[in-house]
Amino acid sequence: MTVSTETLRLLESQAIELPSWAFGNSGTRFKVFSTPGTPRTPEEKIADAAQVNKFTALSPSVAIHIPWDKVDDYAALGRYAEDLGVTLGTVNSNTFQDDAYKFGSLTHVDPKVRQMAIDHHFECIDVMNQTGSEDLKVWLADGTNYPGQGDIRGRQDRLADSLAKIYARLGENQRLVLEYKFFEPAFYHTDVPDWGTSYAQVSALGDRAMVCLDTGHHAPGTNIEFIVAQLLRLGKLGSFDFNSRFYADDDLIVGAADPFQLFRILYEVIRGGGYGPDSTVAFMLDQCHNVEEKIPGQIRSVLNVQEMTARALSVDTVALAAAQEAGDVLGANGIMMDAFYSDVRTDLAAWRESRGLPADPMKAFAASGYQAKIAADRVGGTQAGWGA
Amino acid sequence: MTVSTETLRLLESQAIELPSWAFGNSGTRFKVFSTPGTPRTPEEKIADAAQVNKFTALSPSVAIHIPWDKVDDYAALGRYAEDLGVTLGTVNSNTFQDDAYKFGSLTHVDPKVRQMAIDHHFECIDVMNQTGSEDLKVWLADGTNYPGQGDIRGRQDRLADSLAKIYARLGENQRLVLEYKFFEPAFYHTDVPDWGTSYAQVSALGDRAMVCLDTGHHAPGTNIEFIVAQLLRLGKLGSFDFNSRFYADDDLIVGAADPFQLFRILYEVIRGGGYGPDSTVAFMLDQCHNVEEKIPGQIRSVLNVQEMTARALSVDTVALAAAQEAGDVLGANGIMMDAFYSDVRTDLAAWRESRGLPADPMKAFAASGYQAKIAADRVGGTQAGWGA
Amino acid sequence: MTVSTETLRLLESQAIELPSWAFGNSGTRFKVFSTPGTPRTPEEKIADAAQVNKFTALSPSVAIHIPWDKVDDYAALGRYAEDLGVTLGTVNSNTFQDDAYKFGSLTHVDPKVRQMAIDHHFECIDVMNQTGSEDLKVWLADGTNYPGQGDIRGRQDRLADSLAKIYARLGENQRLVLEYKFFEPAFYHTDVPDWGTSYAQVSALGDRAMVCLDTGHHAPGTNIEFIVAQLLRLGKLGSFDFNSRFYADDDLIVGAADPFQLFRILYEVIRGGGYGPDSTVAFMLDQCHNVEEKIPGQIRSVLNVQEMTARALSVDTVALAAAQEAGDVLGANGIMMDAFYSDVRTDLAAWRESRGLPADPMKAFAASGYQAKIAADRVGGTQAGWGA
Amino acid sequence: MTVSTETLRLLESQAIELPSWAFGNSGTRFKVFSTPGTPRTPEEKIADAAQVNKFTALSPSVAIHIPWDKVDDYAALGRYAEDLGVTLGTVNSNTFQDDAYKFGSLTHVDPKVRQMAIDHHFECIDVMNQTGSEDLKVWLADGTNYPGQGDIRGRQDRLADSLAKIYARLGENQRLVLEYKFFEPAFYHTDVPDWGTSYAQVSALGDRAMVCLDTGHHAPGTNIEFIVAQLLRLGKLGSFDFNSRFYADDDLIVGAADPFQLFRILYEVIRGGGYGPDSTVAFMLDQCHNVEEKIPGQIRSVLNVQEMTARALSVDTVALAAAQEAGDVLGANGIMMDAFYSDVRTDLAAWRESRGLPADPMKAFAASGYQAKIAADRVGGTQAGWGA
Repeated sequence: MTVSTETLRLLESQAIELPSWAFGNSGTRFKVFSTPGTPRTPEEKIADAAQVNKFTALSPSVAIHIPWDKVDDYAALGRYAEDLGVTLGTVNSNTFQDDAYKFGSLTHVDPKVRQMAIDHHFECIDVMNQTGSEDLKVWLADGTNYPGQGDIRGRQDRLADSLAKIYARLGENQRLVLEYKFFEPAFYHTDVPDWGTSYAQVSALGDRAMVCLDTGHHAPGTNIEFIVAQLLRLGKLGSFDFNSRFYADDDLIVGAADPFQLFRILYEVIRGGGYGPDSTVAFMLDQCHNVEEKIPGQIRSVLNVQEMTARALSVDTVALAAAQEAGDVLGANGIMMDAFYSDVRTDLAAWRESRGLPADPMKAFAASGYQAKIAADRVGGTQAGWGA
Repeated sequence: MTVSTETLRLLESQAIELPSWAFGNSGTRFKVFSTPGTPRTPEEKIADAAQVNKFTALSPSVAIHIPWDKVDDYAALGRYAEDLGVTLGTVNSNTFQDDAYKFGSLTHVDPKVRQMAIDHHFECIDVMNQTGSEDLKVWLADGTNYPGQGDIRGRQDRLADSLAKIYARLGENQRLVLEYKFFEPAFYHTDVPDWGTSYAQVSALGDRAMVCLDTGHHAPGTNIEFIVAQLLRLGKLGSFDFNSRFYADDDLIVGAADPFQLFRILYEVIRGGGYGPDSTVAFMLDQCHNVEEKIPGQIRSVLNVQEMTARALSVDTVALAAAQEAGDVLGANGIMMDAFYSDVRTDLAAWRESRGLPADPMKAFAASGYQAKIAADRVGGTQAGWGA
Repeated sequence: MTVSTETLRLLESQAIELPSWAFGNSGTRFKVFSTPGTPRTPEEKIADAAQVNKFTALSPSVAIHIPWDKVDDYAALGRYAEDLGVTLGTVNSNTFQDDAYKFGSLTHVDPKVRQMAIDHHFECIDVMNQTGSEDLKVWLADGTNYPGQGDIRGRQDRLADSLAKIYARLGENQRLVLEYKFFEPAFYHTDVPDWGTSYAQVSALGDRAMVCLDTGHHAPGTNIEFIVAQLLRLGKLGSFDFNSRFYADDDLIVGAADPFQLFRILYEVIRGGGYGPDSTVAFMLDQCHNVEEKIPGQIRSVLNVQEMTARALSVDTVALAAAQEAGDVLGANGIMMDAFYSDVRTDLAAWRESRGLPADPMKAFAASGYQAKIAADRVGGTQAGWGA
Repeated sequence: MTVSTETLRLLESQAIELPSWAFGNSGTRFKVFSTPGTPRTPEEKIADAAQVNKFTALSPSVAIHIPWDKVDDYAALGRYAEDLGVTLGTVNSNTFQDDAYKFGSLTHVDPKVRQMAIDHHFECIDVMNQTGSEDLKVWLADGTNYPGQGDIRGRQDRLADSLAKIYARLGENQRLVLEYKFFEPAFYHTDVPDWGTSYAQVSALGDRAMVCLDTGHHAPGTNIEFIVAQLLRLGKLGSFDFNSRFYADDDLIVGAADPFQLFRILYEVIRGGGYGPDSTVAFMLDQCHNVEEKIPGQIRSVLNVQEMTARALSVDTVALAAAQEAGDVLGANGIMMDAFYSDVRTDLAAWRESRGLPADPMKAFAASGYQAKIAADRVGGTQAGWGA
């Protein structure tokens, strides 16, 4: 057997949160392609997300986005989710789609706009209180397009002030996770562009403020697993947004562009204590299925993470440490590659079956008829997307 | 005087084509901000473009985009433009917004979709015949997001076939210019990703097929002026799409991100015979004014090109050649930098006035009241953007 | 069995040329670390290279570099190699280490320096005539560090002229392969920086001039397999220099940085007819073992290529084509990933044994005592490196 | 007058430290070109550095590098410098050229090697005590080339421990500045790759540990002025290593590759209080003059910094703040560009003359005959470089 019993045991508790918006339409500035069966409501998104969990038992919770998932009764939405076997997870704020935010939100030079953005986060915390969500995720699109357009330094100070106000509103069991992003939608400077900035900002807030690492939000060539190791070491890795990219923030399926990088990232997660029941690191997907089917796209994604975690858990760490101490470069690298090249899929399929899950979740979902059903049922209304 | 009489003489005939779509709304996949006064029709876009020419005498023509600028009577549109002192220029095709093109257009595996895309180009040529436009510009968004999604090689062969059919339809005085782009909207492979591909494809077509170089469409670190020099040497530089970028295809104002790069590009244009009355190289803008005002954004852009051309024309080429031959690295570089650091703005302002133009076109436009007028007049309707 | 009989049959004739210089010392501008047993002579390099072939049967030839491998009698060197079971392959020229080449070689503004560089290539052709080598590989380090230092356009014209003179000297069965490189050692412009330039230059020479693709010589994010597909389509892919990189031209072990990229490259090689007995594409390594052991580093490298070729040959091309035609993005991608994730190592080990080779060449070499022997024997003299 | 009296006053105290090694030979891994007159001793390097100050009054101190500048009597070396009008500045350690450091120095898995590296820094502090230097600069080349080669997390912990030991040895008026670098000489992971890591490490040490920002040590596209603003805000910007780059760590003349970037960096320095008599930020050059003359290369460099500082000081900050508050994107950007495009050279030349300096230091040095004299005098011996 390629995958050890111990590895399987450790995989049992793996949970990867799904983003509700992955089930809606997405695209580029050039075109958003629509697809039959796309959800029109938060409930339909959650129903689709529940399918992913049904076939994989890997995604017991769904992140929501305010206002994209705005409803009148969040407690009812939570009960709806629970009836489908999932819970509501991280609440994501949105300060990039109101006309008021053209020149910034939490960093805006105008205190009224800043307060509006702070109030929006208060609203998100209210939602969290209703849904029982523990994490408030802040991805800040703030930035400028031209040198001189904004005062980089002043914006950073205002950001610190705004975040402090939001942080003060959090409950005792709630966290704020601050996501960084290299660029886009701003094209000259971004106010939280790198892990260092997110780290400096959340460190100033307190213990329940953490960094969110989106795997697609780095400069070309960045060694992401190094950042993982560093943030775990500093006790500030709050959560992951998984996806993959060849160029910019492509938001492709996690593991699709550079599977070996995903392996190395997961290895450092495990190495640094970020994996397992004692870890507080949250694992999420944040992807766009622009041209592929969305539910299978999410199934493929959680399976990719599961399979790669199995490989990363399989590294012979004792032999690796020995090779590292001996300065045996090829030997140490070979131990990593052995684990990476191991084909864990057969063992995982058998293990899934032993747990009452389909051996091949992709095939099982395709055979379920769910996609055809929603394509037939969901007629009329407005398909969900980023604008709604 | 910093700018020589000879340089001023050479600047007289400078013409930079404006894209009609620069006057409509644009943005990112996250948000398109609208602005008061944004045109609702092709006519209103042309009217705005004519303002740029009125204040600068630098932009006598306007590129149109089909179907964004679709009208019933192109001849009438041309007369409308001429009444405003401009002409209609390059016709840009669009094969990226129809649902049929989700998996490609000219490269699509399905011959019916390919024919649909070819027919669209035939339609564009029909428009050219009515407007008297000489250039058909093909920017191909075709590509794939995942390894295996498409057959890279087969798509290239089909592209060649499709382009041949389009090329065959061109009139004797018409050209096809094929734009390349590193990535976006496709995130794994793009069918025309680099100048080499565009060059190979247009070389197979014939003398009237040329490469279009968009300054924002390259990998990080690419030496663009080298490509300019090479394409001029090979006789295949058809046109420029000017803009600037810090990261990806940011589409910022030309010269805004790296003015020295613009200087070097224009120097190689001049060095290679691409500037002046005998050149067939077409100069265009292709930008997005996501957060700044659009008409002043275009005025600023053509002025940037004019000012940088003045600097590039000021290089002491005799001294430069001598320094190069002598292996005088610092001397040769110093000659380039002398021209770049020369402040040509005062001389150009005086020269503008001598030609009956405002010394400061930005101020003159602001003082004209045009922006307030269109903001007041253009009420109702749907503001133009990329989707319309 | 994971690897099919047909795949094994196709693997039988695989040959990957080794660079003699991989067995000498290499490093960075900061430090070259020396290691016990490093060859002092061309003969010792060839002896080490022969070990790689002895344990893998994958590397029947050795590329040499003039003047690093300069000897009095190349025919004797060839016989020496043959006695060890290998042949001499590609001859690599060097026009970057003579003081005369500070400002260029084949592109130099001074005709005397150009002639010196051309003469060096004539000398290389003389060597080829003695060794029976078929390929003359030209990697041109020419370029400039500062804008203005050289005349980009003029240098390109002189390059064309110099190459034409070299090409004219080639025998009927000899080829010139022109390698491109994004940057380094020049830091502003490089005279052959991209595949387009190499393609344009070799196309002007004739049928026996081809492009050499070094996998480490591209801008960040470049889709290398696209270039492979394009060059094969254009009939101009002459050879590969295999290595891998995370940042610049890191010259790491092939497949070490991004194994999935190597898979995609080899898939396109096979797809485009570049693999197998009818192909004229030459496969070489070009790597630096700065910190790892050199002979095992080369063994690991050829095994990486072999294993990844086995995976690439395993792609179900019929199913893939069907999925591509159906627009089944996830299905098509899944077929690629299935092949990539297949663990071919057990089958290849068995196959090796069936051919009288060690199942695990790395272990077998380690057990052979060769490394200890050369460390003990090669005392005194000057270890080979790039300077010698 | 373009440059205001206030700006000139602020320029009076500008000081840019020169690196002694800039006067020795440097190059790439492919070739180090030597030049007539290159120093053979620390004294000769200092003599050359003093020439830069003599002609510019901009570089009153010289950084030294141990062991490249090892002498028996540092006090005597200091007096020698003072006789030439300069002082000894930052002491740079070197833990990348001893064979013991092949797999790391301060991060090495072997405590003996770590202690050796710590001891080397103690030696550097001893030198500082003799020279009166205030800054100990640590650039750590530590890293690995292959995944698995080292334990990223453990290395980081060991680094913290080693740095703490070094920091404890510092005198009350001494600082430790920790330089970060994206990559090279390590090609997979670097132990101090980004500002975040340097910031986290120095923050753990204490008030006298600071970050060193080398302008060439970032991923492609990184907004360096943002980092400047952030580090100043956090009170942790210790020093600059100025140079410029198009690709990797090219170490070209500061301002040569992207003068506008230098302008933006200096603007943020001034904006954040990093410029002027109250600032503790140290400004240094760290460049390689591989193909250009070294003394003029350094003169050109300090002039570039001076001229660009003059431009950055000329920004109309009151108007800029007003435009920023008004959301006037083009206006705010225009204010920045106005300052950047101002030609300050004539005013600075006049100001230099008023202070008894040559109007054109490049010309004055060329006319001085110094280069010819050292070329004639410095015969024999071994030219200084990175290996000595």
